[in-house]
Amino acid sequence: MPVESARARTLLHVHPTEVSLQVALDALADPVRRAILRDLAAHDDWTRACGTFDLPVKKATASHHFAVLRAAGLIEQRDEGARRLNRLRRDEFESAFPGLLAATVDRPD
Amino acid sequence: MPVESARARTLLHVHPTEVSLQVALDALADPVRRAILRDLAAHDDWTRACGTFDLPVKKATASHHFAVLRAAGLIEQRDEGARRLNRLRRDEFESAFPGLLAATVDRPD
Repeated sequence: MPVESARARTLLHVHPTEVSLQVALDALADPVRRAILRDLAAHDDWTRACGTFDLPVKKATASHHFAVLRAAGLIEQRDEGARRLNRLRRDEFESAFPGLLAATVDRPD
Repeated sequence: MPVESARARTLLHVHPTEVSLQVALDALADPVRRAILRDLAAHDDWTRACGTFDLPVKKATASHHFAVLRAAGLIEQRDEGARRLNRLRRDEFESAFPGLLAATVDRPD
């Protein structure tokens, strides 16, 4: 499936240990991105597909937000057929930035 | 001293309980502002004057950063003669945003 492969190649991930505090804070300092993270925190890993989030933005903007979260080591994504599934990288992000998820995502805005 | 009074009137403070998480994160998501907060965290309250911080920005930019920190409930300022003294609002900010200073200021970038 060459189309699938092309899509998969665009999924660049960054491990939280490679992320600066500045990049982590920039990623968290957006209400739509915090909404995505809270949604993921409330569901099992790999059960939430990108298209199913209830977000107040258009699809292209949502895709940008997911890419920012990936680049900040906050989420992991994988394609499964036509769906792009997501996982909050809670444990590894917590190791790199202790307490930051608790102070920003595990609380209301 | 009318000039002093005019200066003092510009010192609008916002209590951390009146600050949104978005405003708090925007304030913390800047390396110069984190440098100011870390400096304050390392010194006793009211011992650091604005002009004495070693910052890589011009005076007007530094003043802007101090104003952002004030508006986010992160610092308190008061004029003492020609000096503007600062205090990190650690306890009240911690009450409003538990763990956020620990995750951002009490660690290196």
